[in-house]
Amino acid sequence: MKLAIMGAGAVGSSVAELAAEYDHEVVALADSNSAAVDAAGLTVESALERKQADGIVGDDDPQDALDSEYDVLVEATPTTLDDAQPGFGHVRTALERDRHVVLANKGPVAERYADVRALESESGGSVLFEATVGGAMPVLSTIDGFGADNITAARGVLNGTANFILSRMAAEGLDYEHVLAEAQDLGVAEADPTFDVEGIDAALKCVILANVLAQGEREFTLDDADIEGISDLPGSALDLAHEDGQTIRLIGEVTDDGVRVGPRLVAEHSAVAPTGTRNIVQFETKHAGRLNVSGRGAGGPETATAVLADVDRLPPL
Amino acid sequence: MKLAIMGAGAVGSSVAELAAEYDHEVVALADSNSAAVDAAGLTVESALERKQADGIVGDDDPQDALDSEYDVLVEATPTTLDDAQPGFGHVRTALERDRHVVLANKGPVAERYADVRALESESGGSVLFEATVGGAMPVLSTIDGFGADNITAARGVLNGTANFILSRMAAEGLDYEHVLAEAQDLGVAEADPTFDVEGIDAALKCVILANVLAQGEREFTLDDADIEGISDLPGSALDLAHEDGQTIRLIGEVTDDGVRVGPRLVAEHSAVAPTGTRNIVQFETKHAGRLNVSGRGAGGPETATAVLADVDRLPPL
Repeated sequence: MKLAIMGAGAVGSSVAELAAEYDHEVVALADSNSAAVDAAGLTVESALERKQADGIVGDDDPQDALDSEYDVLVEATPTTLDDAQPGFGHVRTALERDRHVVLANKGPVAERYADVRALESESGGSVLFEATVGGAMPVLSTIDGFGADNITAARGVLNGTANFILSRMAAEGLDYEHVLAEAQDLGVAEADPTFDVEGIDAALKCVILANVLAQGEREFTLDDADIEGISDLPGSALDLAHEDGQTIRLIGEVTDDGVRVGPRLVAEHSAVAPTGTRNIVQFETKHAGRLNVSGRGAGGPETATAVLADVDRLPPL
Repeated sequence: MKLAIMGAGAVGSSVAELAAEYDHEVVALADSNSAAVDAAGLTVESALERKQADGIVGDDDPQDALDSEYDVLVEATPTTLDDAQPGFGHVRTALERDRHVVLANKGPVAERYADVRALESESGGSVLFEATVGGAMPVLSTIDGFGADNITAARGVLNGTANFILSRMAAEGLDYEHVLAEAQDLGVAEADPTFDVEGIDAALKCVILANVLAQGEREFTLDDADIEGISDLPGSALDLAHEDGQTIRLIGEVTDDGVRVGPRLVAEHSAVAPTGTRNIVQFETKHAGRLNVSGRGAGGPETATAVLADVDRLPPL
């Protein structure tokens, strides 16, 4: 398939780099203010080298990438809230042109799920978004395989940064500020860690899960989520938990009662208490008990793997 | 879809019971010496009550079930080795009639994988077999989603009985014979536990995984597997392991070197050391690190869930 990739950060770049290995061709790659477009297929390496050296991926405009002759638009621009722009506009443009869309950007399916589905229903293209929930983990494809009707709830650890901080606090007896600084040094936490430590990133993923599980019967946005972060959690809470064989994790939950994210007591060494940056999703099923999927929830090549698996799932146009 | 179910044990019965919930119709249900066939759809409950009361599911012969007008043959007879009969014959009959096959029986895809694939390539029907590897866990569908090319190895705990015995031996400091007897009392181990405790069941699942990952470039059968069971394992080995923060699990491995099953030292509380009857499969991927899938690896409704998910994946005939 011919891919146009919007967004040239860690995920967009990795999709571009791995596309050839999956027998796909990149015909356009855009960042926020430049693009490289070539109907015959880009030399991805040159575009990424140019971004490194000059801060632009090529001499074209992002609009040229949107106008190019692609089969699949890969939306990998940063997640934004509320109107989810410019990601949502990219999705609209592609679907109106009867092209497929694969999302790594959570915004459109967390904040405007019904709008995306409405556009899809009028389009010859389809929308897939496995990469938006837990990077490389097969979360949405597991729901698809089981059938949303057969899954009664989902919960788990959906933010690697918050999990890294909590597992370090528990293991080393350090306080939040200290471990956050360490995580920032290691590149595990961003300079502004708000999205991760305040539970917003995990909530967006849970909202997407809730939308998929609701099958259109109800629409969820971030406003429907009850969210509490970890930045006020004292180290002493982890010590107390440990005395009782427990620990604390930032747990996201999707149940009939809605979407909740917050620090919760969980048994030490239990499935929902992974260490480091690992993520886990636990499904409650109607007839098959509890099912866990765990792995790397973020990262360029990891998320790109999910994007490219989605591309391979798309029907022919 | 119209289902003919061969085998009326725990799995076959559960498929029959759950079929209506998935909007499928059971037109035939057979055990080894009787069948109930009704082109208009069976009353599943009566057939299963009759089996309970009289030892037969109905007044028809198993051959009548094979001859009935189904879309999908569900093969849920007991796993047999070598020629994998009678399961293999059922698969052949269905494919030669251009019908789909969904397997819960491991025999045909462990012992005669190339034969099954050859029959499928000549048929209008397809063969799916998610239920043969780890019950409800989405193991083969995860490989399918990622692409076999992107998975470099698989390992895990694929037999709940052996895992129950080892985790009880470790937790209680009891020896093998004692815990086996307890497992038999609880119904976790069969009267003849050979398949489970000697690693044969886990090896069959690994052989199926190896066949899927090899994509036809090489065929594996049980003869290609290096198998060691747990029946000779002294309780003292588990005590020694524990002193070092480790424990012992029956681990199956599929790597470039082939298929191996045997007791292995693993870190306590690690992903490959589940407790009780839980199963786990761990994939090594090319670009997305390590991915774990865990859940109930056996059981009637659990395995039936995988069978019915496969039915929903089949293309229209």
